[in-house]
Formats: sequence, C-alpha cells, structure tokens
Amino acid sequence: MLNNTIAAISTSLSASGIGIIRISGEDAINVGDKIFVSKKNRKLVDQKTHTIHYGNIVDPKNNQIIDEVLVSVMKEPNTYTKENIIEINCHGGVIVMQKILHLVLENGARLAEPGEFTKRAFLNGRMDLSSAEAVIDIINAKTNLSLESSVSQLKGNIYREIKSIRSKLLELIAHIEASIDYPEYDYDELSEDLVKNNLGTIKKRIEKLLNSVDDGKIIREGIKTVIVGKPNVGKSSLMNALLNEDRAIVTDVAGTTRDVLEEYMNIKGVPLRIVDTAGIRKTEDIVEKIGVNKSKELVEKADLIIMIIDASTELTEEDQYIFNLIKDKKTIILLNKIDLPVKITEELVNKEVENTKVISTSLINRKGLDDIEKAIKDMFLIGDIDFNDNLYITNVRHKLSLENAIDSLDAVNNSIEVGMPEDCWSIDIKNSYDYLGEITGDSVNEDIISQIFSQFCLGK
Amino acid sequence: MLNNTIAAISTSLSASGIGIIRISGEDAINVGDKIFVSKKNRKLVDQKTHTIHYGNIVDPKNNQIIDEVLVSVMKEPNTYTKENIIEINCHGGVIVMQKILHLVLENGARLAEPGEFTKRAFLNGRMDLSSAEAVIDIINAKTNLSLESSVSQLKGNIYREIKSIRSKLLELIAHIEASIDYPEYDYDELSEDLVKNNLGTIKKRIEKLLNSVDDGKIIREGIKTVIVGKPNVGKSSLMNALLNEDRAIVTDVAGTTRDVLEEYMNIKGVPLRIVDTAGIRKTEDIVEKIGVNKSKELVEKADLIIMIIDASTELTEEDQYIFNLIKDKKTIILLNKIDLPVKITEELVNKEVENTKVISTSLINRKGLDDIEKAIKDMFLIGDIDFNDNLYITNVRHKLSLENAIDSLDAVNNSIEVGMPEDCWSIDIKNSYDYLGEITGDSVNEDIISQIFSQFCLGK
Repeated sequence: MLNNTIAAISTSLSASGIGIIRISGEDAINVGDKIFVSKKNRKLVDQKTHTIHYGNIVDPKNNQIIDEVLVSVMKEPNTYTKENIIEINCHGGVIVMQKILHLVLENGARLAEPGEFTKRAFLNGRMDLSSAEAVIDIINAKTNLSLESSVSQLKGNIYREIKSIRSKLLELIAHIEASIDYPEYDYDELSEDLVKNNLGTIKKRIEKLLNSVDDGKIIREGIKTVIVGKPNVGKSSLMNALLNEDRAIVTDVAGTTRDVLEEYMNIKGVPLRIVDTAGIRKTEDIVEKIGVNKSKELVEKADLIIMIIDASTELTEEDQYIFNLIKDKKTIILLNKIDLPVKITEELVNKEVENTKVISTSLINRKGLDDIEKAIKDMFLIGDIDFNDNLYITNVRHKLSLENAIDSLDAVNNSIEVGMPEDCWSIDIKNSYDYLGEITGDSVNEDIISQIFSQFCLGK
Repeated sequence: MLNNTIAAISTSLSASGIGIIRISGEDAINVGDKIFVSKKNRKLVDQKTHTIHYGNIVDPKNNQIIDEVLVSVMKEPNTYTKENIIEINCHGGVIVMQKILHLVLENGARLAEPGEFTKRAFLNGRMDLSSAEAVIDIINAKTNLSLESSVSQLKGNIYREIKSIRSKLLELIAHIEASIDYPEYDYDELSEDLVKNNLGTIKKRIEKLLNSVDDGKIIREGIKTVIVGKPNVGKSSLMNALLNEDRAIVTDVAGTTRDVLEEYMNIKGVPLRIVDTAGIRKTEDIVEKIGVNKSKELVEKADLIIMIIDASTELTEEDQYIFNLIKDKKTIILLNKIDLPVKITEELVNKEVENTKVISTSLINRKGLDDIEKAIKDMFLIGDIDFNDNLYITNVRHKLSLENAIDSLDAVNNSIEVGMPEDCWSIDIKNSYDYLGEITGDSVNEDIISQIFSQFCLGK
C-alpha cells in the first residue's frame, strides 16, 4: 500500500536559528508520537489541534536525545494540506535537521517530493491550481511587485475571475443545449445575435486578462536593464539612487552572495532588473572592463539601456562607440552632472542619436529620477500597477490557456458565420471552458500537475 | 527607554518552503496584533499560550496583504526566552521574509542582535551559559558526535558537574571561614590534611574534565585527514566506503555547494574531517593535480595522513615522493587491491617508512575498514565515546577556565605547604570557584557574554 504520510525539511538546509521538519498525512501525528517525548509526557495524538508542545526528539532505537524542539500539532481538515500535519521546530543545523528527518522516515513517513505538500493542498481542494502556483512565485519573488502580484493570485483573484467567466460560458452551453434538446420550447433568446453578444462580452474579459500579460511580465521579471557609460559618468550614483529608493532591510547573512550579477530595484514602483551590477560597482566602467563583445551581448539582450553621459565634459570617442552600440534599442540617455557647468546639451545628443529620450540629471543629488520613471513608464506603457482593481497574468501557462480559450471562441463565431449547426457551437464553447479550467486546475491532466509541482522546492 | 522587544528572521535568508520571523519581549504579542489579521478575526493577545493561528500579515498603513501565515503565540514564562514570543511562519521567500520583518520593526520591535534570543534565555535564567553555548554548537555541528555532545551540553550535563564541584568548594570555603571567625569552636576537621584531601578529590574531578579535551576536540572538529596516493590507487573507493558508513539522507537542495573542500565522515564512530575531497573526487589524483607545494601544505596541516598504495603493482617514484612527504606525520598506509595478485607486501613498505601502520585492504569490497578504525583509535587514543557516562569538554573557553581553576587549587596547596594563614587558602579556593563559575555563567562579565553571543547567527 502506498505510504501516504510524507515528510521533508521545509527550511533551507543551511545553518540558521530554526529548522522545520514537516510531516503531513493520516499517520503524521502517530509518527510524531514515536519520536517525540513531551516535557509533560503527553501524547501528541491527545492534544488539541493548532497547539505547540515542548520536548525532545528521541530515537526510539536507543533512547538517544537528538534535539530539544517545539512540535506543532495541526489536525485535519483545517491545515495546509487538509491532512494531519506535524511541524517539528528544531535547531537549524544541517546535521540535526537531517537526523530528525531520517528518524521521521524510519518511523513511518516517506520523503516528500518537491511541492508535494502544496500539491496535496490543491488535490484536496484547499486551493485551486492558480493559487497553488502562486506559492512558488511568492517564494521566488525578487521584487515587491512580484510578491504583491503572487499574494493576490494566492488569494484567488485569478481563480475568481476565471470561475466567473467559466460560469458564463456554462450558462451559454446550457442554453444552447436546451434549445437543441427541447426544440418544442420557443426559445426566443436563442438568436445568433444573443449568443454572439454574450461571446463578445466574455471574449473582452479574457482579452483584458491577456492585455495584462506585458505588465505581468514586468511585474514578474522586472525590465531587464543595462547601464552603460564611460568611466566616472555616474553609473554608481544611479545605482545608489535606485537602491535608496526602495531598499528592504539588508540583513547580513553568511552565505549571501555579495557579488551579484543582477539586482532588482525600483524607480518609483517600476521594477528594474539591472544586469551586471557587479561590474558597475567594482570598476565604475562597464565598457572598458568587460570588453567590446561582452557589452554588445549585454546591450542586445536588454529590454532597456540607460546610457549616462557626463554633461560637464565634451563627448568622447567612447561615447560615440556607445551611441553606435545602442542604435535601435529602447534607450534613455541621461545627461548627468548638470550641477556642474554644462558642455553638452540635449540638442547636441539628439543630433547624435535621433528619437531618443534625453534627460538632464544630477544623480548625485538624486535629481531627475522622476523624469526617468516617467520615461520608462511611457516607453513600456506601464500604468500605475494596482492589485486592488486589476488582475495581472504573470504565468506563461495561464497566458497560453487564455489564448487557446480565445481561439475557441473565435471558432464559435466562425461557425455561426458559416451557418454551422448549434451543436458545433457548443463544442467550441466547451473547449474554451476547458482551456480556462486548465488555469484553475478544474480540467487539467496529471502530467501537467506533476510538471507544475516538480518546479517547487522541497518541503513546500 | 530601551525598546526591549526584539525581532529577526530565524530561518535562512534564502528561498525555501517556510520562513520564520521571531519576535520576543513584553510587546511581542501587541506587535503581532498590529500586523496580523486572523481568519477568525480574533486578537492574538486573547489567545491561549502555545497556540497557532491562521491568517494574513497586513500592512496597517495601507491594508495591503503581505502574506498568508501561521502565527504561533507563546506567552511568558514558559518560552525560549521566558518572555512573550510570536513566531510568524510565512512563505520562505527572501522578499517576503524581509518585508514582514520590516513591518514588525515598523510596528514596535527592534532588530535583534545575533544570538540575542538565546542571550535572553541565559540572562532570564532559562539556561546556564554552557547550555546556551551548546545552542550554536548544535547549529554548527558537522558530525553526529558533535551533535550528540552539544545536545548533551544543552541538556546541562556540564552545568550539573560544574555546579556540583562548585558546591564542594563552597562547603570548604564555609568551613575554613567558620574556623577563622569562630576560633573558640574546636573544629577538629579543619586539619591541613582534611583540606588537602578535599582539594585533591575536587582537583581530580576537574582533571577528569580536562582529560576529555582531546577527545572533545576530535568530537567537535573531527580528525583532520588527508588522503594521498598516486592516481587510481583507490582514493575514491575509500571515500565511497566512508560515505556509506554513516551517511544521513542527502537532500538535494538548490544552493548546496557540491564542490566541497572538506567532508565529515565516520569510520565506525571515529569522525574524520577529510580535506580536499573535491580534488579527490574530480581527478582521483591529489598529488599530480594540485601540485607539489599544495600537497606539502595539506600534509603539513593534517592530523592524519592516509596513504593508499596499489598492492597489485610495483612501487613507483610517485610512491617514493609521497613516502618522503609523510615522514614524521601520523600516517596510516593502506595496501589496497589485495583482491588482485599482490606485488607489494607490508614488510616491503615498512622498509621504506619505519614505524608506520600498514593495513592490507580491498576498499572496493569494503575490506579492512575495521582495521583502519582500530588503527585510528589507537593512534589518537580515542575510546568508545559515550555521552551517557562521560562528559567531554569541546569548548576552548571552558578548557581555559578549568585550567585556571586547577592553578588556583595548586596555589592553595602551595599556601598550605609554606604555612600561609588560613584566610589565604580561602582566597584561592574562592578564585577556583569563580573560574568554574565562568563556565556556567555564574561569575562572568558582560564583555565575555557579549562576545559569546556575537558568534551566534541572527534569529537564534
């Protein structure tokens, strides 16, 4: 028989204050009782749900104490997986976490697959598939916006909209089928126009979701940005100005990489993913340091180039080289150091590169940031992102399902145009209904589900 | 007024299933109530201790939901710090953990220093200093033995022994002082011999602890071991044999470094810290690959060299080179591949390097491991390590205090020998008593305490 009680280390497998070993399944509490000796010598199985118990993890083979722990007991059905859950809150050492997990596995649980806890939450009906997908997006979120978007998705905003659209489609199907099954009733309403109108309204709602995909991509990934400029034009100043904008507490943790190649930062809510920040920080000189080929490559892959020019000195060959490099790319040119006597004007720059936004800045004094933000928003057509009133599709899988749903609706319109019988209409409407159901997980096959959860981390 | 409510992220600041933000102090639960909205709309402050509550972390500034969480409420005094504690169990994303911490700090807590939770546990009398020090040792434990030793220390085994020795010293001081204060009483017992006898017994107990220091070092750090040998003699086989001996579940976690330079493994309970395993794994050839200087350096720094010779082929120049390298080092030579026809005997090897233990092995068949274990135990005088009957001093600070305590007792004996008055005796006995109190934290200054906890990780 399949062992349906699963366990995993749910925190990082690296030294830290607290480690959590999580167990879920019918036997979770019994497994806990085999290895946990509470201070008050009470069995976990006799405890109320959502209570915490202090004691030791003890190896039943030799009565050796493995660690002093807190154990959380959460009984079905009001748990993450809707199953019995035990969480062992132990010291966050690698060996101690592994040893406790080992003991848990010896005493009746099996190792969970990546994402298996959340998969169970989905399969047991605690959340729809789009909410479950939001879980890993929250964990991997690199910007505040992507976090907000994922939390909003976790809370079911996509689910509710899709569910509502699907119910409209279902009404329409029911209506059409009733008119086929009971032709003796006089369904006034079943005119082609009425069906077409309904479909049009539904299609608009799906299109609205699809229109959010570009913003959704920016929310999720940020605008891939490269900062270029010859040495000492102010690239570090720009970085620092951006960092000050929206910096969470920087907690100094051993093992955090300092020498990052990408950094996420915001200009007034517009998330930028700035590439090769290590280069900028270290040498203040991206072009010279990394060489011609590398800068070409970076510029080619970027969504946005921010070129900085020192306005207090004449243009040089290096600037000319960069002008060449950035032709045909989305570029903003900053004429920096306008606090000093200025030798280069916006007009002069625009002679060199046509149709490019030029902004005068004094980055060291944080002047010009608002203009940069406005320029980026105009360039990428980003509005003020607001998760209260708007939905944003950030997931490529959802985008594909929405596109397929629209195609099916178009097929219905086509069938109506060419005079196909009504039962053909309802087949395509049903397809559209099913495509939307892929997003919520109502109509999705086992393989896709497995594939989605395999991208999760262990212990979630 | 000093803000005495502290907060920190207690799990690793890297993407994982669960993150924990911990808050401790008088206001902890109030801080929690400002940012947590429970599903059932109940205040945390009204909840029973040691209960878990499901809901959202919400920014009170704009009612934005930051994450869906479980919050543990633990009310003083039965908590880790003996203060009110809130633990927020959120999604283990870097941004989300930082954002929640940020919110906690905005709403009345201050950022905890490294180790400050455990420092409070100590200062509030929940544990003695040696137990508190065991906490970070558990987290950093690299071997099963060091984990067991640290857990035993956490459970107060060192504390109890030191406390018992100190009470004996205190009895003696009281006795001596009584005889000074009330000379009219006839204290038969206060003979020099009786004091000396008592001191002798006490000294033996301290010496027993000091004698465990060597084993303690091995327990804590493992025996620093370098495996040498020319290519294809069986270095990888030895590594694999050792790995199979005592391998906890290897959990595949993103971010774990595969290319480790040190690896901890056991030969039948003897912990080895094997250096430069990456070199061995990759090239099966430590000497050639890393060059002459590097191998010299490795060999010089090692506690133990395991040299492997291929017994099925003649000795080569490379073997001779290694023989030279390992002179005067603690070395075990393995004559490997004895499953094949043998061309090299133990006698032959012993002609080359005198007084060195030679063991015939067939590592690929796991033959000879017991002999290796025995050789190492003999070489390092390790007995069977047993935490039930024995105490092991693994902490250098404790060792120094024990040595100082012994020196003070020797000073007493000296005073008695040279006929110093009795009040001189009790000064040195008091010193010894205080030195031992440094271990438990009964007599230790603020600086040392700060220094100890500054080595902790954040959030513990």
